[in-house]
Amino acid sequence: MAIKVHGATLSTATMKVCACLNEKGLDYEFVHVNMRVGEHKKDPFLSLQPFGQVPAFEDGDLKLFESRAINQYIAYTYADKGTPLVFQNPKEMAKALVWMEVEAQKYDRPASKLTWELSFKPTMGKPADDALVEEYVSQLSKVLDVYEARLAQSKYLAGNSFSLADLNHLPTLSYLMGTSVKAVFDSRPHVRAWCEDILERAAWKKVVDMKNNQ
Amino acid sequence: MAIKVHGATLSTATMKVCACLNEKGLDYEFVHVNMRVGEHKKDPFLSLQPFGQVPAFEDGDLKLFESRAINQYIAYTYADKGTPLVFQNPKEMAKALVWMEVEAQKYDRPASKLTWELSFKPTMGKPADDALVEEYVSQLSKVLDVYEARLAQSKYLAGNSFSLADLNHLPTLSYLMGTSVKAVFDSRPHVRAWCEDILERAAWKKVVDMKNNQ
Repeated sequence: MAIKVHGATLSTATMKVCACLNEKGLDYEFVHVNMRVGEHKKDPFLSLQPFGQVPAFEDGDLKLFESRAINQYIAYTYADKGTPLVFQNPKEMAKALVWMEVEAQKYDRPASKLTWELSFKPTMGKPADDALVEEYVSQLSKVLDVYEARLAQSKYLAGNSFSLADLNHLPTLSYLMGTSVKAVFDSRPHVRAWCEDILERAAWKKVVDMKNNQ
Repeated sequence: MAIKVHGATLSTATMKVCACLNEKGLDYEFVHVNMRVGEHKKDPFLSLQPFGQVPAFEDGDLKLFESRAINQYIAYTYADKGTPLVFQNPKEMAKALVWMEVEAQKYDRPASKLTWELSFKPTMGKPADDALVEEYVSQLSKVLDVYEARLAQSKYLAGNSFSLADLNHLPTLSYLMGTSVKAVFDSRPHVRAWCEDILERAAWKKVVDMKNNQ
């Protein structure tokens, strides 16, 4: 099989790439990286990903890392397969790039920190840091205020069709829906409708199933 | 004039966009946003940039924000002008996307925090926070170890020609060269040569001149 994802099913960055491949209907081999024994911090993994973080990606002889870069590559290279995740029209694509960057630069940090505090730490028997949670909820709320205004104008972040700009949110969104932070999303009606819509996608449910069956 | 950059010449994100426009040889109008009186936190600026952060960008009726998204738009839309900053070959472009993401996800945070501590705070008569500086120097050093290995293989991050993956580093790189953190770059010979090379580009010097003449 030409496409390989080296990662861990609990990892949000890994899940992001799998969601993209599923939207495209592409077959791939999932190579489990055992992070408990530190496989991501030594060769051969480090030769694929020099920062020692999952996932790493192969498509034939092309080796990539950084989940958002991998997803852009998949979306452009397999543009004619499955769900169109990028736009042909340059102005529409420019808007999508803006919201892809908003996810990466504004949404991701508070969302990932809250996922760690409220979803991962409890499974390890560690208490959440309440002060950090409060700080990141405040940051996330400001981001979601902008999303609420945006999603009142268009069904999805980049326009009226689902794109990478939406997809890249799914892993943290999914984790946070199982925590008290769900209320922060639910209190904004357009954000709530957007979350419900994108979390219902078949390609995403396949990622959740893979995680649950691991 | 069709292209407008709404920003501040001291802002690293604004400088990044100006560097890109200069590389492309594109004329643009610079609209100064007076952040001292909070112009970025009210209309009309907020209608261009809902997060209240510079820069915002206009190209005719297209309005964009997020400096990395703006630069990708410029590089693709004006592909036939000035310096090629993206690649036509999909595999080369995929590599460029990886290193653009590395800048955004790994390099930028420690570099921006150090720029704040060591370059901006002193001009305001505030002392740097030594513990934070130590933490971010440690993070930056790990990133630059990966850069050193990469730049031993190719002259620039994405390959053998200058691209957006390099360009997006310039503003923080330039500030940090005037601080003690210069030694962290200089101690890695390939990183040092890369810094010297890209900081010498005419398009970048024009940005520095604009800042110094403000």
